[in-house]
Amino acid sequence: LDITIRFLKYFNRHRQDSADLLIFIMLLTLTILTIWLFKHRRFRFLHETGLAMIYGLIVGVILRYGVHVPRDVSNVTMSCHVNASPATLLVNVSNRFYEYTLKGEIRGDDVQDNEMLRKVTFDPEVFFNILLPPIIFHAGYSLKRRHFFRNMGSILAYAFMGTVVSCFFIGLLMYGCVVLMKYLQQLDGEFFFTDCLFFGAIVSATDPVTVLAIFNELQVDVDLYALLFGESVLNDAVALVLSSSIVAYQPEGDNSHTFEVMAMLKSFGVFLGVFSGSFALGVVTGVVTALISFFTKLRDFQLLETALFFLMSWSTFLLAEACGFTGVVAVLFCGITQAHYTFNNLSPESQDRTKQLFELLNFLAENFIFSYMGLTLFTFHSHVFNPMFIVGAFIAVFLGRAANIYPLSFLLNLGRRNKIRSNFQHMMMFAGLRGAMTFALAIRDTATYARQMMFSTTLLIVFFTVWVCGGGTTQMLSCQLAICARWTFRPEVGRFNPLRFFFNDYFDMTHLTAHEAVVGVDSDQDNSVSVAEIKRRSTKQESAWLFRIWYNFDHNYLKPILTHSGPPLTATLPPCCGPLARFLTSPQAFENEGPLKDDDSDLILTDGEINLSYGDITVSTDATGAHSAFPSAGGAGAATSDDLDKELAYGDHELVMRGTRLVLPMDDSEPSITELQPHIRM
Amino acid sequence: LDITIRFLKYFNRHRQDSADLLIFIMLLTLTILTIWLFKHRRFRFLHETGLAMIYGLIVGVILRYGVHVPRDVSNVTMSCHVNASPATLLVNVSNRFYEYTLKGEIRGDDVQDNEMLRKVTFDPEVFFNILLPPIIFHAGYSLKRRHFFRNMGSILAYAFMGTVVSCFFIGLLMYGCVVLMKYLQQLDGEFFFTDCLFFGAIVSATDPVTVLAIFNELQVDVDLYALLFGESVLNDAVALVLSSSIVAYQPEGDNSHTFEVMAMLKSFGVFLGVFSGSFALGVVTGVVTALISFFTKLRDFQLLETALFFLMSWSTFLLAEACGFTGVVAVLFCGITQAHYTFNNLSPESQDRTKQLFELLNFLAENFIFSYMGLTLFTFHSHVFNPMFIVGAFIAVFLGRAANIYPLSFLLNLGRRNKIRSNFQHMMMFAGLRGAMTFALAIRDTATYARQMMFSTTLLIVFFTVWVCGGGTTQMLSCQLAICARWTFRPEVGRFNPLRFFFNDYFDMTHLTAHEAVVGVDSDQDNSVSVAEIKRRSTKQESAWLFRIWYNFDHNYLKPILTHSGPPLTATLPPCCGPLARFLTSPQAFENEGPLKDDDSDLILTDGEINLSYGDITVSTDATGAHSAFPSAGGAGAATSDDLDKELAYGDHELVMRGTRLVLPMDDSEPSITELQPHIRM
Repeated sequence: LDITIRFLKYFNRHRQDSADLLIFIMLLTLTILTIWLFKHRRFRFLHETGLAMIYGLIVGVILRYGVHVPRDVSNVTMSCHVNASPATLLVNVSNRFYEYTLKGEIRGDDVQDNEMLRKVTFDPEVFFNILLPPIIFHAGYSLKRRHFFRNMGSILAYAFMGTVVSCFFIGLLMYGCVVLMKYLQQLDGEFFFTDCLFFGAIVSATDPVTVLAIFNELQVDVDLYALLFGESVLNDAVALVLSSSIVAYQPEGDNSHTFEVMAMLKSFGVFLGVFSGSFALGVVTGVVTALISFFTKLRDFQLLETALFFLMSWSTFLLAEACGFTGVVAVLFCGITQAHYTFNNLSPESQDRTKQLFELLNFLAENFIFSYMGLTLFTFHSHVFNPMFIVGAFIAVFLGRAANIYPLSFLLNLGRRNKIRSNFQHMMMFAGLRGAMTFALAIRDTATYARQMMFSTTLLIVFFTVWVCGGGTTQMLSCQLAICARWTFRPEVGRFNPLRFFFNDYFDMTHLTAHEAVVGVDSDQDNSVSVAEIKRRSTKQESAWLFRIWYNFDHNYLKPILTHSGPPLTATLPPCCGPLARFLTSPQAFENEGPLKDDDSDLILTDGEINLSYGDITVSTDATGAHSAFPSAGGAGAATSDDLDKELAYGDHELVMRGTRLVLPMDDSEPSITELQPHIRM
Repeated sequence: LDITIRFLKYFNRHRQDSADLLIFIMLLTLTILTIWLFKHRRFRFLHETGLAMIYGLIVGVILRYGVHVPRDVSNVTMSCHVNASPATLLVNVSNRFYEYTLKGEIRGDDVQDNEMLRKVTFDPEVFFNILLPPIIFHAGYSLKRRHFFRNMGSILAYAFMGTVVSCFFIGLLMYGCVVLMKYLQQLDGEFFFTDCLFFGAIVSATDPVTVLAIFNELQVDVDLYALLFGESVLNDAVALVLSSSIVAYQPEGDNSHTFEVMAMLKSFGVFLGVFSGSFALGVVTGVVTALISFFTKLRDFQLLETALFFLMSWSTFLLAEACGFTGVVAVLFCGITQAHYTFNNLSPESQDRTKQLFELLNFLAENFIFSYMGLTLFTFHSHVFNPMFIVGAFIAVFLGRAANIYPLSFLLNLGRRNKIRSNFQHMMMFAGLRGAMTFALAIRDTATYARQMMFSTTLLIVFFTVWVCGGGTTQMLSCQLAICARWTFRPEVGRFNPLRFFFNDYFDMTHLTAHEAVVGVDSDQDNSVSVAEIKRRSTKQESAWLFRIWYNFDHNYLKPILTHSGPPLTATLPPCCGPLARFLTSPQAFENEGPLKDDDSDLILTDGEINLSYGDITVSTDATGAHSAFPSAGGAGAATSDDLDKELAYGDHELVMRGTRLVLPMDDSEPSITELQPHIRM
């Protein structure tokens, strides 16, 4: 093998680096100012990430066609024999050793090309090691935990089965497309089945950002929110691990693209090993942080507390990467654990500080990635836009999402107490945007022809979904929701409101069964709770046994050990463990012995988010008919929309007060049923 | 020139990088936990940075003697001719171009050395581009502005003249030492006069961290605090620019170490240009941020506001670096400007957020640098410890600091109304720790023998000053202060308390002349204000004309234009500029028209910092005798120490209420003198 070495001269490399980074900082500043303008003027048709992409595009066009900095190359050719490009070169210039590190491959035809374009190209690993971790951690840290855990089964089903189904479905469709292209001689390079599967994996990662931002503003149902958010957060992790398992698929022998059972099993093993390893690491560091904050009185020094929290969360990422697991996945589960346990041990100031810190980091990283995406469309050196592949990919992505959501929802509805309505499913279908994770996975490896084609196509998919699905659809939906919210709750329109027929599902949630039961008993609305309904509930109880077991274990043992909340261990552990229990229980816990307040249940919720959604229940505690929600709740006295607001606020308040009754509907429904029995038998 | 290329094989470079970074994260975590323990148990003999260094040392020892990872080197030798080591290599391996970037020089004898040691060595530029900026920005952002501006003249004198004096003084002493060493044949390499000057520049940068942390706890006098803090913050900037000007000194001709007037003038020009350029850039971006936050209603969206603030401050650094100025210096002045103007426009939440954010970044960066220092003592590959040079350097540093503080204080005292007492001067002398900036400057270039010797010596100086001066001395002082505070204020001990004789100066401050005057009039203590004193005051007024002009301009024009505080421009601008004034004045400003509240004066102060210091004035309004402070204030009714506490709290409260009377003593002293005249003439 021949090696040619060319020396590039930069007199002021550092200065140029600063100037390049400055471009992005300026882009972000511009984005922030425009976002402010949009929010100020209440334009909602474009999300901030979509905006960042547009600015990125503009700067990309300018750099591509406006600026030309030729590269200063002085050719010095040397020859020697090595069989790979190593990560580090040691160059000996007159007995002084200089170390060089590999920055990446440069396409042969691009070497003499525009210097500026090359300079605004970041090392793809920057995304995985610097920008993604805070985004993913923030997602985990801000998961609404109660609703997340209540819907855990469905979320896990969507995240694991759904992503795998979507990945293979898209992979197969794309393989069909690629075969067709080969037949029509549209391909200029190789494209294997594993490439198709890889493409399926990377475009299966959905992004919660855009839609959730709008959900937040609209205050839609918490369960829908939890489902969507949980799914998109977890499926990022699944897609990431899935894609690396597909890359790990390497059959023995010369032809590395045949099917081989052993290699496939190995890939499957990699998937399981990496995922569970990352999961375990994330949870362990989260628990360690909780223990540290539990046993020290660090809360007296907020700066130390925040710093420790930050460092421990970061070390999760580094530890996972150092062990060969996936840092981003570990960080996700670390975030969830921190929110579930550590957060309760922090001082109120640190709770605010950590939330704000990661909110800021998330905001900056996210907008950076999206503006970089826009930039990349014009500055990336080796785009391969193949119209047929692009059309095929768009269809495949659409169908893949459908093949994920609809069949799974059908199956889940067989077991779910509160059904996922069809309108929910449409919503989830459209909310499946592709974002930062998809982009980061696609740009990570653009060495082969197939990967380059994938990258270019992925970019277009992200643009389309963020602008059209994220902007247009949700804008439309938000308008409709707003109209419908105004109409459905107006008593004079009542039962005959045509809009309610279509949009009722958003409001007509029967998910808080225990709460319903309580309302039913409290406000003498027992007529709305039929015997059949109660029977249905008690049979469905078993389906949530996993959640119940988990909840009991968590509430009785983990919470008391790791946090200052929950019942004292002396009450939950068997008497034989008395001394141990006393040792492990914090003094605060004994004060909680009376009526339990599950003080973590709403802490992560931002203000006012649950207003409307919980308010709905008092309004539409509909258990029998599908569309008779409002009149049956008329007893609540919601005569005008003003009264309704009060009612909503009251419902919200009540919810916080009632504590565990709501958190654990399965446990509570037993007594409420017995309470109800006389009423119904009467 | 021959070039040998060796290929180093790393199979999992990224994994190892993560593991290396993890070491530091763990170190920081450990430091935080120990700091907590120290604070919890009220150990004060060691500051957190000193602690971080100790942990760094321990890990350094382990890495040096415990772990040995041999480097896997496969030699491939190639030859060709170039005349320098370029920043970027392009390597062509079978028509694929790989880009390599220069990481740094490796000492020839170290190439086969312990891999682990090499890996925990960071690129020195990391300090300048990542770790120092947040530290310096935070210092600027938390400068106590009123006291800073009031003592601006003295601070600038110490920072500029003092640092230059110290630099040349140390440089000359070290040159003497080096000449002696040459004579005794103790030198193994070249050591020029410019090297000595460079050494003088880097060890002239004092670190505010340690001492100020203790000052904060002890709540010493605000003026002393402002002097010390302002000096150490600014002299970092001066030393940095000074050292780069010394490096820029390159006489023409073959012998590059002779004296040449032109080269020296050029160096001086570089100093002025770089410093003023960085200063201007920092102020301009600060003002731009203030204007943006003034004209937009960004304060409704705290996340956007904080993000913008962060990005603008960061862009200052990048802009300065891209323009060839010094980013760290620009960031310092940007921080001061942000604190002075932008801070007033931020929403209260963002004020907290930005303060907390930079506090956290500062904490992490600082402790990282100090633990890295500890580590470096054992892991750095080419230490040169020369006992004679080290002893010489310690003496020179001590004398240099003395040559800076004492003569300058004497000169300043000639012009200062409130003298810098000799105890203050001793305090400033001992508080001159060397820290992050000195280390970063020393490690930036360790290519030559002289620089390596400097670096090793600098490390020892930092260790000594942080541990001994930062730990022991301040611990001792704090004890003495505590004792003395208890004794001096006990009336039964009164005038004959021997401790007061030594430590009176800390409490016996006559710096708030206007306040004294006010107190004198209010509480009929006119006997304590002599005619001579008043005359002295009115003559000293002129010496602060610079401050007065600046204050008036700032208060009347800049504040109203850039912030929502201050008087409306319509009141301060001449009538002809009416329309312009109305356009530029914010609606809020008109509400301020009544009694002016200078609402930025205390915002940066942390709670309770000014208690003791201001309280002192009501106690020791001593203007005639030197040690008769307490009895003359007896009329204030401070009979017991409990009463005194109340008095102090009242004094503090009063101070905030009185607003501008205190902020601008020169303006206020005029009417107070006329008010006093009748009293005195009577």
